[in-house]
Amino acid sequence: MFEQLGLIGCGLMGGSFALALKRAKLVKRVVGYSKSPSTTERAKQLGVIDVAAPSALLAVSGADLVLIAVPVGASEQTFKAIRHGITDQMLVMDVGSTKGDVIEAARRGLQDQLSSFVPAHPIAGKEVAGVEHADAGLYTGRQVVLTPIKTTLRSNVQRATQVWSGIGAKVRTMTPDEHDTTFAAVSHLPHLIAFAFTSGIATQPQGERFLEMAGPGFRDFTRIAASDPAVWRDILMANREKVLLQSQTFRDALRQFEALLASSDAQALENAIAAVSQVRSQWQPGAMGSPE
Amino acid sequence: MFEQLGLIGCGLMGGSFALALKRAKLVKRVVGYSKSPSTTERAKQLGVIDVAAPSALLAVSGADLVLIAVPVGASEQTFKAIRHGITDQMLVMDVGSTKGDVIEAARRGLQDQLSSFVPAHPIAGKEVAGVEHADAGLYTGRQVVLTPIKTTLRSNVQRATQVWSGIGAKVRTMTPDEHDTTFAAVSHLPHLIAFAFTSGIATQPQGERFLEMAGPGFRDFTRIAASDPAVWRDILMANREKVLLQSQTFRDALRQFEALLASSDAQALENAIAAVSQVRSQWQPGAMGSPE
Repeated sequence: MFEQLGLIGCGLMGGSFALALKRAKLVKRVVGYSKSPSTTERAKQLGVIDVAAPSALLAVSGADLVLIAVPVGASEQTFKAIRHGITDQMLVMDVGSTKGDVIEAARRGLQDQLSSFVPAHPIAGKEVAGVEHADAGLYTGRQVVLTPIKTTLRSNVQRATQVWSGIGAKVRTMTPDEHDTTFAAVSHLPHLIAFAFTSGIATQPQGERFLEMAGPGFRDFTRIAASDPAVWRDILMANREKVLLQSQTFRDALRQFEALLASSDAQALENAIAAVSQVRSQWQPGAMGSPE
Repeated sequence: MFEQLGLIGCGLMGGSFALALKRAKLVKRVVGYSKSPSTTERAKQLGVIDVAAPSALLAVSGADLVLIAVPVGASEQTFKAIRHGITDQMLVMDVGSTKGDVIEAARRGLQDQLSSFVPAHPIAGKEVAGVEHADAGLYTGRQVVLTPIKTTLRSNVQRATQVWSGIGAKVRTMTPDEHDTTFAAVSHLPHLIAFAFTSGIATQPQGERFLEMAGPGFRDFTRIAASDPAVWRDILMANREKVLLQSQTFRDALRQFEALLASSDAQALENAIAAVSQVRSQWQPGAMGSPE
């Protein structure tokens, strides 16, 4: 049980965390700050936060739990803004989809308070942004990856595990590099592809007519193309080397499928699709083992 | 109201059509045939068809409505098999995702009975195949594209429109070429990409570990990768020129996004994502106008 959550960034991810903690009775009070005062005000109106703080530093002051839920590109300035409010008793976490760059930002921003920080990435989201869509159940049953580094206090990793488990998430740990490689492959690249695909359709002369005829397959395939531009600008930029590497692997695979089409080898094409279809049919979201 | 539906291919698409017609009381009796006797038997057990026919020709005999719901690559042999059972009073349709090749197959297979045939493509489906998944509501609210040709009887196009409207679908007509271009862009290419992407992940040494961590974005993006291999082998092969053309357009768009990443131009990347995100947010499935 925490006394006070200091929430920096009262959007979908941060707001959902606050609501989940309140529902699980894991926090007594939430003090929130967003860069935009109207967002902070809206979060208060919606009962997501109890008190609106006029700055990130004041949101942190007096908290025993801090969650930073800003686009990853704003991490360093956020860490710098709150550094003088961090105490040794605080647990500080983020929710960023990239970890290597956030950890570097924390090193530079938090300096001697780095041990309080447990890098965290909950594998959850919606294609709609904003505190209006905050949802106490967003993290229920979802995976959360913690990527502690050498300086991270072990007791803080334990506390972080308890918080996320307490709101129904499944926790596992990875190295930051393993995390960023994994999510370049299964999350960041799909977003890049969905952006490029939708752009490729929309910019054709007949694009509008094409879109009129698109069905349920298109709907699901491109759902992530509606994602928040600022959030995904930061994620793709932060992890761009690994994303570009994965994109190369994808291009090679696409070229192989194109070659099967061009060669009219129907049996080879069917075999290739059958292999993929089997992988995807057997896949289950979050089919991970027990929490670490 | 039809007396008898002759159903060739008692799978997901054909079975759902039979169930929908029965539910709407648009048919008195369904006589079904599938290449695999066990499928035909199962369709009968499930009440999808009333009578199991031992051949495609016998399934057609006595019918006033015929639906061919086989992988598009099997169209020609199916048309040939039923040709001598087709009368001038029959309305014959297919459900194939490609139209140019099916029409060619009908020309060769049906010959002087071609005027009875109304090429049809209902924009509906599931990532699971088989009569077990047949669903009377599969076509409700979905679009159905009819692609009549010069020889198609106008009265048959009207009857086809009535049948599909009668089970809750929205009907529009296009030329076969316009259809195949459109669906290469919004359906066939997404399948090819989803196959290639999933293959690219699964064949990496860490592929299994990657898949363990994949979340809801991956789930929706790759749903169509679980599609039926034989069905998609035929669709991609039948429409391969247009699909390869669309794939080239997609590759160019992907290259542009990669270049934005590589150049570290965060603002340009955000602008590009914002444009796409807006298109996708505003898109509605089946946002077509009134039926033609």
